Amino acid sequence: MSFNTFGHMFRVTTFGESHGVAIGCVVDGCPPLIELGAEDIQRDLDRRRPGQSRFTTQRQEADAVKILSGVMAHPETGVQVTTGTPIGLLIENTDQRSKDYSEIKDKFRPGHADFTYEAKYGLRDYRGGGRSSARETAMRVAAGAIARKVVPDIRVRGALVQMGPYKIDRDKWDWDEVARNPFFCPDRDKAAFFEEYLDGIRKKGSSIGAVIEVVAEGVPAGLGAPIYGKLDSDLAGAMMSINAVKGVEVGAGFGAAELSGEENADEMRTGNNGTRFLSNHAGGILGGISTGQPVVVRFAVKPTSSILTPRRTVDRSGAETEILTKGRHDPCVGIRAVPVGEAMMACVLADHFLRHRGQVGAR
Amino acid sequence: MSFNTFGHMFRVTTFGESHGVAIGCVVDGCPPLIELGAEDIQRDLDRRRPGQSRFTTQRQEADAVKILSGVMAHPETGVQVTTGTPIGLLIENTDQRSKDYSEIKDKFRPGHADFTYEAKYGLRDYRGGGRSSARETAMRVAAGAIARKVVPDIRVRGALVQMGPYKIDRDKWDWDEVARNPFFCPDRDKAAFFEEYLDGIRKKGSSIGAVIEVVAEGVPAGLGAPIYGKLDSDLAGAMMSINAVKGVEVGAGFGAAELSGEENADEMRTGNNGTRFLSNHAGGILGGISTGQPVVVRFAVKPTSSILTPRRTVDRSGAETEILTKGRHDPCVGIRAVPVGEAMMACVLADHFLRHRGQVGAR
Amino acid sequence: MSFNTFGHMFRVTTFGESHGVAIGCVVDGCPPLIELGAEDIQRDLDRRRPGQSRFTTQRQEADAVKILSGVMAHPETGVQVTTGTPIGLLIENTDQRSKDYSEIKDKFRPGHADFTYEAKYGLRDYRGGGRSSARETAMRVAAGAIARKVVPDIRVRGALVQMGPYKIDRDKWDWDEVARNPFFCPDRDKAAFFEEYLDGIRKKGSSIGAVIEVVAEGVPAGLGAPIYGKLDSDLAGAMMSINAVKGVEVGAGFGAAELSGEENADEMRTGNNGTRFLSNHAGGILGGISTGQPVVVRFAVKPTSSILTPRRTVDRSGAETEILTKGRHDPCVGIRAVPVGEAMMACVLADHFLRHRGQVGAR
Amino acid sequence: MSFNTFGHMFRVTTFGESHGVAIGCVVDGCPPLIELGAEDIQRDLDRRRPGQSRFTTQRQEADAVKILSGVMAHPETGVQVTTGTPIGLLIENTDQRSKDYSEIKDKFRPGHADFTYEAKYGLRDYRGGGRSSARETAMRVAAGAIARKVVPDIRVRGALVQMGPYKIDRDKWDWDEVARNPFFCPDRDKAAFFEEYLDGIRKKGSSIGAVIEVVAEGVPAGLGAPIYGKLDSDLAGAMMSINAVKGVEVGAGFGAAELSGEENADEMRTGNNGTRFLSNHAGGILGGISTGQPVVVRFAVKPTSSILTPRRTVDRSGAETEILTKGRHDPCVGIRAVPVGEAMMACVLADHFLRHRGQVGAR
Repeated sequence: MSFNTFGHMFRVTTFGESHGVAIGCVVDGCPPLIELGAEDIQRDLDRRRPGQSRFTTQRQEADAVKILSGVMAHPETGVQVTTGTPIGLLIENTDQRSKDYSEIKDKFRPGHADFTYEAKYGLRDYRGGGRSSARETAMRVAAGAIARKVVPDIRVRGALVQMGPYKIDRDKWDWDEVARNPFFCPDRDKAAFFEEYLDGIRKKGSSIGAVIEVVAEGVPAGLGAPIYGKLDSDLAGAMMSINAVKGVEVGAGFGAAELSGEENADEMRTGNNGTRFLSNHAGGILGGISTGQPVVVRFAVKPTSSILTPRRTVDRSGAETEILTKGRHDPCVGIRAVPVGEAMMACVLADHFLRHRGQVGAR
Repeated sequence: MSFNTFGHMFRVTTFGESHGVAIGCVVDGCPPLIELGAEDIQRDLDRRRPGQSRFTTQRQEADAVKILSGVMAHPETGVQVTTGTPIGLLIENTDQRSKDYSEIKDKFRPGHADFTYEAKYGLRDYRGGGRSSARETAMRVAAGAIARKVVPDIRVRGALVQMGPYKIDRDKWDWDEVARNPFFCPDRDKAAFFEEYLDGIRKKGSSIGAVIEVVAEGVPAGLGAPIYGKLDSDLAGAMMSINAVKGVEVGAGFGAAELSGEENADEMRTGNNGTRFLSNHAGGILGGISTGQPVVVRFAVKPTSSILTPRRTVDRSGAETEILTKGRHDPCVGIRAVPVGEAMMACVLADHFLRHRGQVGAR
Repeated sequence: MSFNTFGHMFRVTTFGESHGVAIGCVVDGCPPLIELGAEDIQRDLDRRRPGQSRFTTQRQEADAVKILSGVMAHPETGVQVTTGTPIGLLIENTDQRSKDYSEIKDKFRPGHADFTYEAKYGLRDYRGGGRSSARETAMRVAAGAIARKVVPDIRVRGALVQMGPYKIDRDKWDWDEVARNPFFCPDRDKAAFFEEYLDGIRKKGSSIGAVIEVVAEGVPAGLGAPIYGKLDSDLAGAMMSINAVKGVEVGAGFGAAELSGEENADEMRTGNNGTRFLSNHAGGILGGISTGQPVVVRFAVKPTSSILTPRRTVDRSGAETEILTKGRHDPCVGIRAVPVGEAMMACVLADHFLRHRGQVGAR
Repeated sequence: MSFNTFGHMFRVTTFGESHGVAIGCVVDGCPPLIELGAEDIQRDLDRRRPGQSRFTTQRQEADAVKILSGVMAHPETGVQVTTGTPIGLLIENTDQRSKDYSEIKDKFRPGHADFTYEAKYGLRDYRGGGRSSARETAMRVAAGAIARKVVPDIRVRGALVQMGPYKIDRDKWDWDEVARNPFFCPDRDKAAFFEEYLDGIRKKGSSIGAVIEVVAEGVPAGLGAPIYGKLDSDLAGAMMSINAVKGVEVGAGFGAAELSGEENADEMRTGNNGTRFLSNHAGGILGGISTGQPVVVRFAVKPTSSILTPRRTVDRSGAETEILTKGRHDPCVGIRAVPVGEAMMACVLADHFLRHRGQVGAR
C-alpha cells in the first residue's frame, strides 16, 4: 500500500474529497472476461450508503456509480464484461450543501485528522473532512464489489459484533439477521438492544465505538506471500487503513496471548475433502498463508469524533479555544464500516489469488 | 510489503532459512553519510539472540553480522559511513545440528506453517521451520538498527506488557527495568512473578502467549501517507508480519470500541513547543498521520506451537497421526518479539520519514 | 512502471478507452501548495490536440480537462493550490461518432495491437483502438503539465528532428521555430520541406515515421537512483511506453557505438558555476545519475499503421483476408508524440526529484 | 525498477561493490519446484567472466557463485529444487588487489560515474568504480540463469552485431559461431576482422563502442502489461540500466522512422500453428504485448571510458587537472554486455510470464 493505491496484482487507486466534484477509483489488473455491470457495484454501495436509518449520517447521497472504462459488451454474447484494462469508476458528489465552514475552517477538531493534515501538508481541505472523510470508503466498497467477482467461490461477509462494551452472543449468530437490522448485527436480541442504546447516545449528541468481524469462506489453502506479503499482514494493513480503525486481529487475536500452546494449536484430521481442522484459533492463516478454513478478521472502530459536547482545542494560529461539531454525523461510525471491511477483505483476497496464480500457476 | 521486501524508500529485503548456509538482508534506499559499523547492528542483534536465559530457545547462535556492502571509510574522516548504495548483511548459520528430522519431515505440526507452505508450494523446508522460522527475524532487527540511525531523534523502545492472563501494572512502568530481567518487562514485580510462572510452563513442556508494546518518542508530526500508506496501516502490516502475531492495536486500540466520543477525543492546548495534547488515545496517529505525540503500538503473540504434549495431526499422505515437537524452543516466543517489534517500528518510521521528506521537502 | 501506473513518488495512473465515456488520470504524490489550475493543464493539452492542421487526425475533440480533486483555494491567498492528496483528472470523449466498426471488428489490423490484445485478453475493444489508442497520451500530457510545476526550474522542450529519411540541419536549430510550424520542427527550412513531403504521403493514404528529441535544461546534478532506477533507464522505459515508439537513445545514443573512448569522454573544466563539461555525449547522464548538463533523449516513432492501401491479414476465426483502414488518421503520428515525449520527460524528472529529495534530503 | 530491485513478480535485488567483500543478489518470487543447482548459474557466469581473452579486462575472478537459500533437495526425488522462497546468491570478491587509488581518489574520470555519484551522495567509492562497476552485472547474469528456468520454452540468445562503424553481414549470421570467437559475433568473417581491429585499439590504449542484439524465440503471444508495463517498455528500461548502454531499439527500431506504413506493417497469414507474420518489423511486440514472433532488441554500448590517453578533468576541490586511467580494462566493454543483455531479456520475460499468468490465468 503506497499513497493512494493498494494491492499488487489487483490494484486499487482512489481519489476525491468529501465535498469536491466527485470521488473516483481505478481498479487495475482485473482479469478479463468477468461479467460486470454498474448494478453489481451499486448493490454493495447501497449497503454502505448513509442516510438509511437514523443511526447513520443524514447526508443524502445517491452514490450512483458510473463505470467509465475497462468494460465492453462481449462481441459474441453481448453481455458486458471486463476487458483486462483499467476500470475507471466515478461517483459525483451531489449533496455538497453550501455549508458554513467558518467554525471549523481554522480550528482543529479533536480526534479528526485536521491537525495532522495541516502539519503534513501546510493546509487542509476543511470542507467535510476533505480526503480524510469516510466518504472515501465508498470507492473501497466499489472496488470490493469487483474483487468479489474475481474470486467468485469465496464468500465474504461482515457483522458488527460489539458496540460500546456490549458484545453479541455468539451462540445466537445468524447471518440472515445481519440484513434485517440497521446495525449489521447477527444477534437479533442484541440488535434490539442496540436500537435503544444507540438512540440514547445519539440523542445526547455523543458517539460510541464498535468491533466488526469479517469472515471469508471458501478461501483455498495456499494464498499469501511470506514473509512480507503475508495474508494476515496485508489484511491488517488493509483494515487499519479504514477510517477510525484502531485495532485488528485474526482468529483468536489478542485472546491468543492468554492461551497455552495446547489450546491454541488447531489439530488436524482427514475429512472428506482433505485435511480438516478441529478448531480455528488461527483464523484461517498459518505462517501468513491461508489454511483453507474461514479467514476471520476483527477490527475495532473508535467512536465518531464529531460530537455535540464542546471540546478544548487550538486554532491554526495556536490560540486556545473550544469546538463543537454540528452537522450530519454517525453516532456509531463502526456500523458503516461493515461493508467497508468486507470490501477490503475481498480486495486483499483477490490480490493474493492473482499473485498466487502468478507465482505457482495452477487453477 | 511484497513477497520478501518491505518499505518504499527505506527498503528491506531478507532471505534465508533456519537451517541453510546463512540468512541475509539488503537494506536499500538508506541515506548516505550515516555512520554505521557492524557493532551498531550487533548491539541490537544481541538483545534478540536466543540462549541468553532459560526462557528462550537454547539454540546457540553467535549471530555475528557482516556488512558486505554499502559502507566505506569516509575519505576525510576515516569513519565508516553509508554510501547511499544497498547495504548487504549476512549472518552465517553456525548451529545447524545434524538433527534427525524424520519425525517432522512428513507430519504437519499444528500451529506451524508446515501445512500451509506445503499447500502453497508443493513442498516445504522441514528443517527447523525453513523460511517460516523465527530465525528470519534476526534480519529485521539488523535492518531496524540501521533504521534507527536514519531517524536519530526518534527513540523506539519495546516492552512485554502481558504474559498469559497477567498484565503489568502500568503505574509501575520503569523503562530501565526492561534491561534487567529476561522478559523485557517494565514492571519489576511482575517480572519476578513471570520468572516463576514461566518456569512452570516450561517444565511441563507447554507454552504461553504474550502482548508486546512498542513506543516511539520524538516522532515529528506529519509522517504518514494517506489513504493507503497510512502510518498506522503500515505499522499494523509490519507487526502482523512478525511470526506468531495475531493482533495489532494503536493507542486505545480495541479499548476504543468501548469509549464515547467525549472520552476518546484527545483535547489540545498550546504548550511551550507548540500544540500539546491532553491525552493520547490516538496512539500518536490521526488520519494515518503522526501527531507529534508518542506512537504507541501493541501486538499479541500466540503461544509457541512447539510443545511436548502430543497433538493430533495428519501427514503428507493424509494419514491421521500424532506429533510431539521435541527440541530447543521458547516457552514464550513473545519475549524475543520485543526487539523485533522495535525494529519493525523503526523501519516503518524511517521509511515514512524519507517518503515525507520526498513529497513535502523540509527538514 | 506497472500495469497502468508509472512513477514511484510522483505516480501517474491512467484509465479510459478511445471511444468510451471518458479518459482520466490520477496524479498521486504531488507536493502540496503548488499553484495549479485547469488552464495550466489545458495549455499543454492544446499543443497535443488533434485536428489542428491537416497533418494530424481530423478527430475533433475539445479535450477539455476537469480537475476532480486534490486542489483547493488556499485559505489565505485564495489561489488554487495542490493539497498533497491525489489529483483526479477527467476528459470526456465528445467525438464518439456512431461509426461502423464491422470492417475492423473481426479483422486484425497489421501494425496495430488488435492481434495482441486479443491474444492476451481473449477480446479487445475494437472501437478506435480501445485502450491502445493514442488518445491515452492526452492523460500523459496532463500529468506532465503538473510534473513541470513540481520542478519549475527545469525546462523541458521537444522537437521533431527527422521525418522519414530527412533529418533537420542542427546548425539551423531554433527553438522559437518549433511553435511556428505544424511539425514542432526547429529547422525552418526543413519544416517548409516537410509540408510538401507529408502532403504527398497524406494524399496517397500512406504514412511515415519520425524521430523526436526532448531536451531538459536546468536539471540539477544528482538525480537518478542506481542501479535499477537509473534516470536513463526510467527515461528509456517511459519513452518506449509511448504508442508506436520503437527506439530510444540518450546523448550520443547509437552513435556512441562508433566512437572511441577519447571522443566519447566528456572532459571537464571549472566554470563560474562549478564543474563545466566540454561536450555532452553523455546526454546529461553518467552512471544513471544526472550530471547537471541538459538531459537529451531521442526516440523513433514508427509510421502510422492505419493506411489506405490494403494489407493482408487474418480475422478472429483465422481466415485469411485483407484490410484497409479508413477514417481519421495521422500521416505522421510522430508529430503529436512531441508533447507526449516532453510530458514523459517531465514526469520522470519530477519523480526522480522527489525520490532524490527523500533519500538525500537537501534542496 | 526502483533503486536496486527490478521486476514485479520475478524480483531481483542486487548489492555489492567492485572491491568490497562480496557481491550478491536476492531472486524473489521464483516459482517452486524448479530444478536449480549452482552449476546452472555458473555456466552463464562463466560466459560473462572477464580475463578469458586479451579483449576483456584481465581482472582474474573465479566468480564462483554460492546459493545461500531458496533451494532444497526434493523430499522424494532428492534433486535440488526451488522452494518458492527467496534465492540468495553470493559471489566473493577474490581479486581485490591492494591497489594504489591515490590517482583517482580525488579526480573525476570523464565518462565514468565519479562526478555524479559524488554529486548525488556527497561521496563515492573510488575503488574500482564501486557500485557503478560492471562487476555488478555478474549478479544480473546469475539472476538471468534462474529466469531462463522459469520460462524453459523460451530461448534467449545474444550477439555482437557492430563494433565501431563495422556491422556484421546479416546474411552470414550463424548462431553457432557466437561461441567460437571472443566477441560473441555471429559472422565468422567479421569476427576475424574484429580480432585485428580490436588489437589495434587495445595496443594504443583506446577503446571502442558496440551494438548488441538479443533475440528471444518461443515467446508466447500475450506477454506484456499495457500501458505502463509494456513488454518493450520494460525491456528498454532493463537494457538501458546496463552499464554504458546509450540506446535501445526493438525490431526495426530507429530504422522505423524511415519506413512507410506499407513497409512497416507486418502482414499476417494463417499457418500450421496459428497466425503467421510475413515480416517482423515489430520485433515481436505490438501495443506492448508479444505477438508470438521472436522478440528482437538491440542496444548500443559506448566505448570504455578508461583509456590510456590523458583527458582534462577536475578534482573534488574543483581544481583543473588531467587524468589517465591505468589498469585492467576492456577495450570494448560491449563484448561482455552480450550475456548481460541476454540475462536482462530473460528476467523481463520471466517476470511478464508470471504477471500474465497471474492476471489472465491459463497455461
